[in-house]
Amino acid sequence: MPDSIPSLPDWLSRGMADLFPAGDPSDADQALAARLAQAEKEGRPLRVKLGIDPTGSNIHLGHSILFRKLRAFQDGGHTAVLIIGDFTARIGDPTGKSATRVQLSKEQVAANASTYLRQLGQDQPKETALLDFETPGRLEVRYNSEWLEGMDLPAVIGLLGTGTVGQMLAKDDFSKRYGSGTPIALHEFLYPLLQGYDSVAVNADVELGGTDQKFNVAMGRDLQRHFNKGTQFGLLLPILVGLDGVQKMSKSLGNVVGLEEDPLSMYSKLEKVGDAAIDDYVTLLTDLDLASLPDNPREKQKAMALAVTASRHGIEAAQKAQSDAATLVGGSGDAGADVPEASLAEVNFPAKAFYLFSAVGICASSSEARRQIKGGAARLEGEKITDPNQEFTSAAELEGKVLQLGKKTFRRLVA
Amino acid sequence: MPDSIPSLPDWLSRGMADLFPAGDPSDADQALAARLAQAEKEGRPLRVKLGIDPTGSNIHLGHSILFRKLRAFQDGGHTAVLIIGDFTARIGDPTGKSATRVQLSKEQVAANASTYLRQLGQDQPKETALLDFETPGRLEVRYNSEWLEGMDLPAVIGLLGTGTVGQMLAKDDFSKRYGSGTPIALHEFLYPLLQGYDSVAVNADVELGGTDQKFNVAMGRDLQRHFNKGTQFGLLLPILVGLDGVQKMSKSLGNVVGLEEDPLSMYSKLEKVGDAAIDDYVTLLTDLDLASLPDNPREKQKAMALAVTASRHGIEAAQKAQSDAATLVGGSGDAGADVPEASLAEVNFPAKAFYLFSAVGICASSSEARRQIKGGAARLEGEKITDPNQEFTSAAELEGKVLQLGKKTFRRLVA
Repeated sequence: MPDSIPSLPDWLSRGMADLFPAGDPSDADQALAARLAQAEKEGRPLRVKLGIDPTGSNIHLGHSILFRKLRAFQDGGHTAVLIIGDFTARIGDPTGKSATRVQLSKEQVAANASTYLRQLGQDQPKETALLDFETPGRLEVRYNSEWLEGMDLPAVIGLLGTGTVGQMLAKDDFSKRYGSGTPIALHEFLYPLLQGYDSVAVNADVELGGTDQKFNVAMGRDLQRHFNKGTQFGLLLPILVGLDGVQKMSKSLGNVVGLEEDPLSMYSKLEKVGDAAIDDYVTLLTDLDLASLPDNPREKQKAMALAVTASRHGIEAAQKAQSDAATLVGGSGDAGADVPEASLAEVNFPAKAFYLFSAVGICASSSEARRQIKGGAARLEGEKITDPNQEFTSAAELEGKVLQLGKKTFRRLVA
Repeated sequence: MPDSIPSLPDWLSRGMADLFPAGDPSDADQALAARLAQAEKEGRPLRVKLGIDPTGSNIHLGHSILFRKLRAFQDGGHTAVLIIGDFTARIGDPTGKSATRVQLSKEQVAANASTYLRQLGQDQPKETALLDFETPGRLEVRYNSEWLEGMDLPAVIGLLGTGTVGQMLAKDDFSKRYGSGTPIALHEFLYPLLQGYDSVAVNADVELGGTDQKFNVAMGRDLQRHFNKGTQFGLLLPILVGLDGVQKMSKSLGNVVGLEEDPLSMYSKLEKVGDAAIDDYVTLLTDLDLASLPDNPREKQKAMALAVTASRHGIEAAQKAQSDAATLVGGSGDAGADVPEASLAEVNFPAKAFYLFSAVGICASSSEARRQIKGGAARLEGEKITDPNQEFTSAAELEGKVLQLGKKTFRRLVA
C-alpha cells in the first residue's frame, strides 16, 4: 500500500500564486509536500531563502507579503534564510545607466541593511516583529559577499557556462528589451546567475519571490543541480497592487503604505483600497478567514484595515485609529486623535490659508495649496476651507487644531 | 604649412587586408602612419600585439604569415608583444562542448607554449628564426594568466558592462548560431572581452590578426578607451588558403605545410599550390617582388616554393630540395637527395609491395597500400610499381633506395 499523498498546510499555500516544480507527489525533489514530509522524518527544518537588495528604501506592505510568508515558515518550525545582497548592491550597475542599481559604498550598504533589519523587527519581541528574530534556529541572516567576494574568473566562467544566450533572451524583460532594440549590457546576464548561486551557497529547500522572480528562482534550482546540491522549490506570491487598486505597490507610483506609518495614516489609507483589491489584501496581509468576512465591501475594507494596522501596531492602537479616522473624515475634530503634529513656530502671522498649508508642509507649494483649497480638499477641524485667502491672525487661534488635506493627510498644529 | 602626411612603409602594408581605424591622417589615434611618426619622434618603439592559443598543434605556414608581419615590425625597430593565452587554455570550455577549447592542465599548457616558442625560433639566431629572439627590446613574451588569474568578480562585471548583447550577437559567428538556434553558452561572450583586455594589459599600439579576428581586435581598442589607455590599431592579414587553393589552410583539412617539414617535402608541396593562390603565397610568405617574377605560373610556383623553403631551411637546402624534387618526380632516383629515412629493421622478408608500403609507415594500412599501388601512385626509385604483390626478397635489395607515394611523400629505405 503506498503512503498517503501528503498535502500542503494552509499556512503555506495561502495566497500562493505559483509553486514549482509540482511533479510526482511522492518525490521529495518534485513535490514540496513530499519534501516537507521527508524533512520532518529526518527531523530537520527546511531552509527557506528570501533575498533582499539593501538599496535603501523603506519596506512597504507590498514587500511585507514575502516576509509574512517567510514568517509563516518560521512559525511552522523552519529556518528562514534572509540573504542580504550587499555585494551586488556595492557593485551596482557599472554602466551607471540603471537607476535601480546605483553603486553604493560599503557604509551605505551596511546602514541600509541595518535599517531593513530594524524594520523587520530585529529589536522586537516576535509577537510584534515581522520576522521571528528570537527563537533559536529560525533565522539566518547571510550576506552574499560571503561567497561572491572571493569568486574568481574561472568560477565566473564556470557559472556563465551553465546558461545560454537563448535562455536569457527568453526571459520576459530581456526579450522585450532585445525586441525593442534597447541595449542590454552583458553583465545583466550575470545577475540572475549570481542570485541563483545564492541558493547553491545556502542550500535552500525553498525560495520565495514575487511572480516576477520566476526566472531567477528557477535559475537557482538549475544551478543547485549543476553543483550537485539538493534542489529548491520556487514558491511565488502575487505582486500586491497599490492603493489605487491597479498598479503594483511601489514608492515611485505613490500608492504605498509604509510598514512604519503611524496607525491613523495606515488605517486611513487601507480602508480606501479599491474594491477589486480587498480580497488580495485580506489574503496576503492578514490571517483573516475571507469566507467569514461580511460581503459588504465597505465592512470588508474596515476589517482588513483594522487587522493590518493591528498586526503592526497592536489591536488597541488599531481600534483607536479606526475611531479617529471615522471622526476626522466625518468632520468633527477630536483633540485626542492620534494625529501627527506640525509646528507653527515658523509660520508668519497673519497667515492666509494657502500659505498655512504650504508653511506647515502639507502642500509642496503655495500654488498647490491654492489649488487644493479651491478643489475642496482642505479642512480645519473637519470644516471645509473654501477661500484660499481666508486669514488667521495668530498661532493661538490655531494651536491644537487639526488641519486636513483630502481624506488621508492630517496634522495637529502645535506652537 | 601643415606637416606632410606620412605614409606607411612597404614592409608594413605588404599583404595587409584591413587596417583600422583609418581616419584623420594627422591624428596619431586615427592613422597608423601618424602613430608611427609620433612614436619615432618620442623615440619609443610601437608595441605590437599578437595573441596565440597554446592548444598544442604545430605551427604551419598559414599561421606563419602573422608571425612574419610581427617579425617585420621587429626588424623595423618595434617591440613584438607575443601573448600566450595560458589562462584561457587552462579554463577551456567549461561546458565541454567545444572541441577547440579543451581544458588543458598547467603542465600541458607549459609544454605547448614551449613547443611554440621553439618553432618560432627561440633557440635560433635571428637569421633563421621566425621571430627575433636575440635583439634586446624587440620581443616580450607575456602569459595572460599574469592579469587574468587575479581578476575578481567586480572586475569581471565591469568588463562585461562594457559590452551589450546586441553587439555580441552582431558578431558573425554568434549571429549565425543564434539565427540557426544553436546554443551559445554565456561564457562565450566573455572570451572576446578577455582577449580585448589583453590589449589593455600590455598597452598595445597595434594588434595583428586574421580577417576573422576583426571583432575581437576592435574590442581591444574599445576596452583600451574604456580604461583610459592609448588605443590600438587593428592590422589584419588574409586567411591563407591551403594547398588545395580553395579552403583555409588547416590541419583538419589536410592541406597544410608544417613549419618544420623537411625541405623536400615543403618544396614539393609548395610547387603544386593552385594557380589562383600563388600570388598570395608570394606576398604573404616571401619577400619577393611579385612584379619581377616570371608570368608563367609554373615558374612562379617554383620561385615561391624555393623562397619559402629557403626562408625556413636556408638557400642551399632549398635548392637541393628543388633539384631532388625535379629528379624524383621525373622518375630517376638520386642517392644524394635529402629524403627522410624509413627503417627496414621491422620488415619481414620476403615482402610484398603492399605490405612494404604499410610496414614502413607510408600507408596507414595494407588495404590502403593496395589501393594506392593499383591507382598508380607508388614508385620505387622513380619507377612505378603496378603490382601490389610484387615481391622483394631481402632488405639488401631495397637498402638506400627511395620509395615514393604520390608526388609528395618520399622515404629513403635504410637497414
